Amino acid sequence: MARPRAFDEKQVLDAVRDQFWDAGYAATSLEDLMRVSGLGKGSLYAAFGDKRQLFLRALRSYTDESHGRLREALTEAPRALDALRALLEAPVDDAMGEGVRRGCLMANSTSELGNADPEVLDHAHRTYETSTALIGDCVARAQREGDVSAEADPTELARALLAAQQGLVFMSRTGMDAATLAATARSLAAQLLPDRSGD
Amino acid sequence: MARPRAFDEKQVLDAVRDQFWDAGYAATSLEDLMRVSGLGKGSLYAAFGDKRQLFLRALRSYTDESHGRLREALTEAPRALDALRALLEAPVDDAMGEGVRRGCLMANSTSELGNADPEVLDHAHRTYETSTALIGDCVARAQREGDVSAEADPTELARALLAAQQGLVFMSRTGMDAATLAATARSLAAQLLPDRSGD
Repeated sequence: MARPRAFDEKQVLDAVRDQFWDAGYAATSLEDLMRVSGLGKGSLYAAFGDKRQLFLRALRSYTDESHGRLREALTEAPRALDALRALLEAPVDDAMGEGVRRGCLMANSTSELGNADPEVLDHAHRTYETSTALIGDCVARAQREGDVSAEADPTELARALLAAQQGLVFMSRTGMDAATLAATARSLAAQLLPDRSGD
Repeated sequence: MARPRAFDEKQVLDAVRDQFWDAGYAATSLEDLMRVSGLGKGSLYAAFGDKRQLFLRALRSYTDESHGRLREALTEAPRALDALRALLEAPVDDAMGEGVRRGCLMANSTSELGNADPEVLDHAHRTYETSTALIGDCVARAQREGDVSAEADPTELARALLAAQQGLVFMSRTGMDAATLAATARSLAAQLLPDRSGD
């Protein structure tokens, strides 16, 4: 019987994820990873491989959790249209809530490592495909609920919403004030998801 | 009379900019900067200060040039609406043209350094304000030309277009195929800048 690991894998991955999220990949040293995980180099590398492998594990854990939350938010909302509009408001809430503008770890990682690490790009690509599929399902539900024109292509609208959301997340990081950001989000929502109650 | 510098400052800044753009800030070493500039540590630091100062200079030179190109594209187009639509198509052209998906250096730098360097965030903020003003002027011209509803707020529409464009630039980096990216850009353009020829 294998000896059980003397640490909580999820806890270590969360700590490592936060470190990479705060400082970026290249600026994070092995010493940083040992400090935040409370593990020695030997345990860390035995369990996860080298720095890059540890980073990819933390990144996958982050995107899995993000998709879990996205799926929940999109399927649990009584009205699909509200869930879709909330997608665009999320960057505003985040900017307000924590006051910490770390952005999206997947987006940051693509920006930092996109030229250097094909595996990061490949993971980014799959992440966006999954997000598009989840949002596309919600668009289709909004169509059945009569809130989005039946003529819209759900996948295409999902991609447009995702692009708009990523742009807002990005803008929220540049110190744009919350009122301006909220107005931009509302303006995008009004145009991408127009009110059809008067139709 | 001061002795003229024995190198072309613009050439050095361009080379340094490309290095940071390819590899990111933290992953770029002093050796990299010496190699791409062809200068020794002494000349480099005497002329530009340390690595961070050199990075900030290269970043400012990049955003100044980007704004010059943006201003030209927006003011020289015979019809403002075409210039605004082209904004959303630019990430698609870039993805196609070079096949190099380096993204936007300002966006990449914000992602990598936003948590660590307030001066980078401040520069990002001013960059987006300048872009918004340039695009807002073009929206106002499109209104005078009858192509954008007079009821739209030019600054708000400019911010929505900028967010959409940044989202597209970002998506173009994740290996999204050109046809999908082009369809997303067209979809955003159709919704943010709807055709009014039938009005």
